[in-house]
Order: sequence, then C-alpha cells, then structure tokens
Amino acid sequence: MKALNVQLLMTGNELLSGDIVDSNSAMIAQALKELGIEIKRKVTVSDDIELIAQEIKNISQQADILIINGGLGPTVDDMTAQAIALASDKPLTEHPQALQHIKAWCKKRKSELNSAGLKQTLLPDGCSIIANSVGSAVGMQLTHNNCEIYSTPGVPKELKVMLNEEIVPSLAKKVPSEMKLEVTRLQVYGVGESSLQTLIDDEFPDWPDELELGFRATIPLLEVKLTSRTSTAKALKIHWLEKLKSLLGDHIINEISSRPINLAEQVLTLLREKNQQITTAESCTGGLIASLLTEIPGSSQSFEAGFVTYSNTIKSEILEVEPSIIAQHGAVSEATVLAMAKGALAKAHADIVIAVSGIAGPGGATPDKPVGTVWMAWGSSNKIFSHCFHLNGGRIYIQQHVAAIGLDLIRRLLINSEEQANYLK
Amino acid sequence: MKALNVQLLMTGNELLSGDIVDSNSAMIAQALKELGIEIKRKVTVSDDIELIAQEIKNISQQADILIINGGLGPTVDDMTAQAIALASDKPLTEHPQALQHIKAWCKKRKSELNSAGLKQTLLPDGCSIIANSVGSAVGMQLTHNNCEIYSTPGVPKELKVMLNEEIVPSLAKKVPSEMKLEVTRLQVYGVGESSLQTLIDDEFPDWPDELELGFRATIPLLEVKLTSRTSTAKALKIHWLEKLKSLLGDHIINEISSRPINLAEQVLTLLREKNQQITTAESCTGGLIASLLTEIPGSSQSFEAGFVTYSNTIKSEILEVEPSIIAQHGAVSEATVLAMAKGALAKAHADIVIAVSGIAGPGGATPDKPVGTVWMAWGSSNKIFSHCFHLNGGRIYIQQHVAAIGLDLIRRLLINSEEQANYLK
Repeated sequence: MKALNVQLLMTGNELLSGDIVDSNSAMIAQALKELGIEIKRKVTVSDDIELIAQEIKNISQQADILIINGGLGPTVDDMTAQAIALASDKPLTEHPQALQHIKAWCKKRKSELNSAGLKQTLLPDGCSIIANSVGSAVGMQLTHNNCEIYSTPGVPKELKVMLNEEIVPSLAKKVPSEMKLEVTRLQVYGVGESSLQTLIDDEFPDWPDELELGFRATIPLLEVKLTSRTSTAKALKIHWLEKLKSLLGDHIINEISSRPINLAEQVLTLLREKNQQITTAESCTGGLIASLLTEIPGSSQSFEAGFVTYSNTIKSEILEVEPSIIAQHGAVSEATVLAMAKGALAKAHADIVIAVSGIAGPGGATPDKPVGTVWMAWGSSNKIFSHCFHLNGGRIYIQQHVAAIGLDLIRRLLINSEEQANYLK
Repeated sequence: MKALNVQLLMTGNELLSGDIVDSNSAMIAQALKELGIEIKRKVTVSDDIELIAQEIKNISQQADILIINGGLGPTVDDMTAQAIALASDKPLTEHPQALQHIKAWCKKRKSELNSAGLKQTLLPDGCSIIANSVGSAVGMQLTHNNCEIYSTPGVPKELKVMLNEEIVPSLAKKVPSEMKLEVTRLQVYGVGESSLQTLIDDEFPDWPDELELGFRATIPLLEVKLTSRTSTAKALKIHWLEKLKSLLGDHIINEISSRPINLAEQVLTLLREKNQQITTAESCTGGLIASLLTEIPGSSQSFEAGFVTYSNTIKSEILEVEPSIIAQHGAVSEATVLAMAKGALAKAHADIVIAVSGIAGPGGATPDKPVGTVWMAWGSSNKIFSHCFHLNGGRIYIQQHVAAIGLDLIRRLLINSEEQANYLK
C-alpha cells in the first residue's frame, strides 16, 4: 500500500523571526507517528494571506492530507480561514456551530462577544468544524483538490486537545489497521547508546526486521524504542521484548506506560516502598542532587536534610569531617567523601546517603586531580561504597552528569543490584 | 528599496519525525535579524535527494538568498551536495580546499581519513567553500538562478560558528547600511511585561516610531529590546534609551553587550566586589538556590555552605531554630524563617543570607496557608528583612519563581536599592 502524502503548513511571523522555536510541528509529528503516518514535507510562512493561500493551492495538489497550524485567533494577523477561502475559491460564511461554540465560550468566561470574536465564526463555505474544548477558536476540516485539509490552532494546549480528541481519531480511520504502529519505550541509564547498539548487534544477530529498534537521548536517560506494525505477530514482539529487557537488566529505570519518569522520582518511589530516608552531602554539585529530589511532589516524606559544604572548614564544622583527613588526603579524596557521607547520615538521622566531592571546573584543578575528578560515596550505615569518576565537559555538564550518576547509584543500591553500570560511555 | 527574499531549506528526517525540535532555523533567523533581514519562507524536507533537489530548484527561482541547513555529514543520509549538484546540473568534483580541510581535521584528531570523510570533499563544481573551524564538514556557497545559495551544517555548534564567522559578514555586504538594525537589550527583573507596557505607554506617550520597543520573556528574566535602523539619528536613540533606563531603574540586571547573564551570576559578581560570603537555608526550594549559585564558575569564592532543612527537627538541630518557635508559629512563618536565616548566618560564618520556608505543593497546604505561601528572610547580621509571598502555579514553577525572587532580593540588597519590585505581576 502506498504511504499517505501528509504535509504541514505552519503559519506565523514569530516562527520565522526566531522569537519562538516551533514545537507544534513536533507535537503533530509525534501524534501521527503512532498511526504509522510520516510527514513528508513542512512549509512555514509568515502571516501573509497571499502566501498562505498560494501554499494551500500548491500543497493541496500534491498531498493527501494537509494540516495547517496557526492563524485561527481573533486578531487581524489570524487569517487562515480567509486564506483557505481564497485558495479554494469559496466564500466565507457564518458557521452556525462555530457561532454556538463562541457564544458558549464567552458565556462561560462571562465576557462579551465582540466583533473580534465574531470574526472567528466566519469560515469557508462547506467546511465542517473541529471542536476545541479549551479555546475560543474552532478548527476546520474540508476537502480541496482531493486533499483533506485540517486547520488547527497555534496555542499548543489547544492543538494538543484537538489532535488527541479529533484529528488522530479521524486520521486513524484512513490508515489500514495493519499499518498502525505499536511502540514500547524503555527508559535506561548506565549504558551508552553506542555500546548498547554494539551489544545488541553482538547478542542478537538474528534480530527480526519487523521490530524496529531505536534510541533517543533524553538527557540524562536513554530511551530505547521498540516499534512494530500492528500486523507483526504478537508472540514475536513479546519474545524479543523479553530478550531485550533481560539484556538491559538493571539499566532499565522504567517501561513507559503513561508517562516518562526521572531518576529522582524512581529513587523516591523506592525509598517510600522501603520507608527509608535519604540525605545528601554535596560539594561540587552544590545542592543539585537535593534540588532534583525535592522537585518531586511528596519528597518531604523521604528527604529531611541536605548539606552543601563547599569549604574545608564547613565540611569539618557541619559534617564533622576530621580536619586531619582533609589535610592529609585533600577535599577531593576517598577519605574525605566517606567522612562526609558518615557525617551527613548521622546529622540527618537518615538511612541512605549520597556524598560528592569533586572538581567541576573551570578552576580548582591540580596536576594529579584534573577538572572532572569526582569522588562519590553512597550507602547506608551498614556499608558505604565509594568510587572516583573522571568526567569530561563544562562545569554545568559535569554537575548534571554527577547528579545523575549519584541518583542512579542510590537506585541500584535500593534494588540490591549486582550488575555493573558504565556511566562514562 | 525592496527587501531581500530570503528562504530557508531545512533537511533531515529527525526534523519531520518530531524526534527533535528545529532550533537551528531560529538561530539563523536571529542572526539575520540583526542585519535587518527577515526570512520569508521555510521549507523542511526529509533526507530524500529528489525532494531536496526539487525544493532547491523551486526556491532558487523565487528567492534572492537560500540558506540550506543539514545534510553535510559523512553518512549516506547526508546528501545536500548531491542534491545541489542535481538541482543545478553541475557535476560533483573533489574540492581541493575541502580536501585540505578534512586532512587537517583528521590529523588534529589523530584519525584516519576514510571513504566517508572523502565523500565530504565531493562538492558541486564551481562552488566556493565556507570554512568550518569546529567540524569536519565545510559549507558551500554558489549562485544558481541568480539566487545565492549557502549550505550549512546541521550540528548547532558548527552552524553557529559558520553564521557568525562567514555568513553574516558575507550577507552584511548585500544589505545597504541604512537598512541594518541596531539592537540594545536590557535584562530586567521585578516588573512584569504587561505592567511595563502600561507604564511606558503612560510615561512616554511621545515615544518615537523609529525606535521599536519589544519584550521577550527569558524566564525568569524579561528582555527589553530597543531596535532601530542604523539610519535613525544617534542622538534620538541615546536620549530615549536613557529615559527608558531611568524608568526601569534597579529592575535592570544587565545591558547585554556580549552575552546575557543570570541573576545568580550578578549576585556573585556583586558579592565578589564587596568581598562577602553568602549562605542559603532552604526548605521548599530544596537546594535550588544553592544549586543556581554553584552553577556559576568561581562561586566557591563567595559561597561556602548551604542548608536544606525540610523537617522541623532538622531546622532545630542544624540551624538552631528554637523548637518552641516552630511549635508556636509553624514551619512556614515569619518567626521560623527569620530564625533559619540567623542560624545559617552563624553556622556558615557568612555575611549575607537568604532563607526560605513555604509550601510548594501539591500537598502540605492548610486552610490559612494555601499552596504557594512562601516566607522569605534575607539580609546580613545588621538587619534581616522578611516578607510573605503568595504564588500560583505547579510545584516546580513555584520553586523556580521563589529561587529567582530570592536571588533578586539579595541583588537589590547588595546594590542598596530602595526601589520597590513587583514580583507577582
């Protein structure tokens, strides 16, 4: 079967001026991809009625489906309805359902229906409307030159609702069910994309063509995507997903069912399950690990105290690190980071600790401790582990990388993992 | 004078699949805007040589300038050079300067020049190259159908360098100097966009048309932009910029000359100038303020210790807040946050402190303290100020808003400001 020719027409001066980045087209592409529909071409033009009409004429002659985004609002630069009317040589007429929608919208918001609002009810003759449950402007649907045209609002929230509630269900009917895609997404950490690709090539030389394997870097996590057509045998999918999962082991943070999660959220979930408390003792990450944990709602249940101890004096005074340890081994050392971890555990009355001392740069390096040298200690009062990492990159990159590693070390501790992670590849 | 017709052609499957958001075209638009050049139209297509060649043919017939982005790399999906050759009916030949570039590139990285690398030296006959100081692929420049075509790499870092070093200077020659734009940018905080617009309308009813005033929200800061043509009288610009600056007063963080700065950076600059130390005592922001400060290189000079004290016990044990104060007034209260500030100052031996205790939600609200109730205390051992803010929004939004307000309060303290900020509009 021939693939549908689907094109996008994005309108708006702000998309061409660089004042905003166009994320709407990515939202449309992602929604359509689940149906197995790929976008062939996208054209972006400014709020110029002649230009918009010209593109609609051109695209409708090539494409099966055209999705227009933007230009449905009440102001003078909103001119998609007029442009469609011009391109398809149809008059603008007041659409009864659009009028009904805007009246109800104004009533709900206790505002007057003015002439700007009434402009939104003038639509190309013969079009049907696409409901908008969260905004004043309805969308339009019509056929021109055998091309199905959908016109959608530029406000991302409104576009999202219209895509999910109206357009995707409508397009789904045009795609044979065996063409549709089923996607399984795993969030992993502790293995790099290229090592993982090599590992899979080596372990699974007979990986079936029907299952497309993809990777997407969602820093710091890696998303592993298994995509197949609905027509692919279910048994085949289950079999290879299991093999993939067993290969990935404890690198898997989460299988995305409803929404992706992050490392801090997973750590807090595990802590809650065990009814345990965590504390942080941070030098070079400067509160970033504490901040990532406390971003998560309900974190106060498992996090009572965190310490940012930059100077040596403070490490000694607040975390009771013996000054002689720092004097002998330096602030960035195994002995110091272990003492920081012990001190924080005691001061915070916590069960679990992560302590970090390192050189995030650009200053602070010594010949034997270059920028990126980071000692971490993590564990419980039973046992505290420690390791020295050597990272590359700028200050913020190093801080973020260290924070992610720290959270993942805690996650692996909490699931009693004995597998080895490789955080540097 | 007629404006130049400038169009963009963006190539890459990932731009149409929604896996990445296209920020390169915004970068190009912003760079060209400084020259007074607007982009008229943008077309995005997948890595399909026929499609790319077709678009090049079409656009080169309409436009004065075409900037192509993407497809210059060594892999098989990189096919811009072939597409230009196809569209312009020119053979691909080995370009001596491109060969020289890739040889030097490989030598510097101690890697072998392989066939994939050699592919990058095969360029359309007669084109000139655009130097790439940070990547393996050179850009191309040629004229076809009287249209000047620039071909640029998809890697943002490489695009940026090529724009700044080669393309903008080259295009600048095509634009008459009186058409060029001069932009002055002020970073402000403590006054909202709509209040500022009203204030300017009221105060400056005779604001001249030749000076365009624009706003850009760069959360948390607001960027105020004053744009004029080079031909506008210099005296006029200086006069109104001074009036604007005097209206904005201490809301101004920075006038952007080379690069924007953030609140934490400005606070640290002021602290260094005064040779003072800051400490943080955070409850609902959970280390975010400390983390924003320590993101900045050299922060260790002015920041030795920060405290994240979530629970009441920890507030008492670590910051020596009297348990009776918390019992009587609650953790989110003026008395508690003042005691936290005093405790942190003493423990950290610091000169300046910011302390925060509030309810970031979604849990933790009480009838008289809804989500968004945040007490802040800031000052020095001489005088500690306090204020209760009532914020709206989700947890992370509230945390980020509180952190920005906290840093701005410190900034105003350090410049001895007596002006009033309005953080909630």
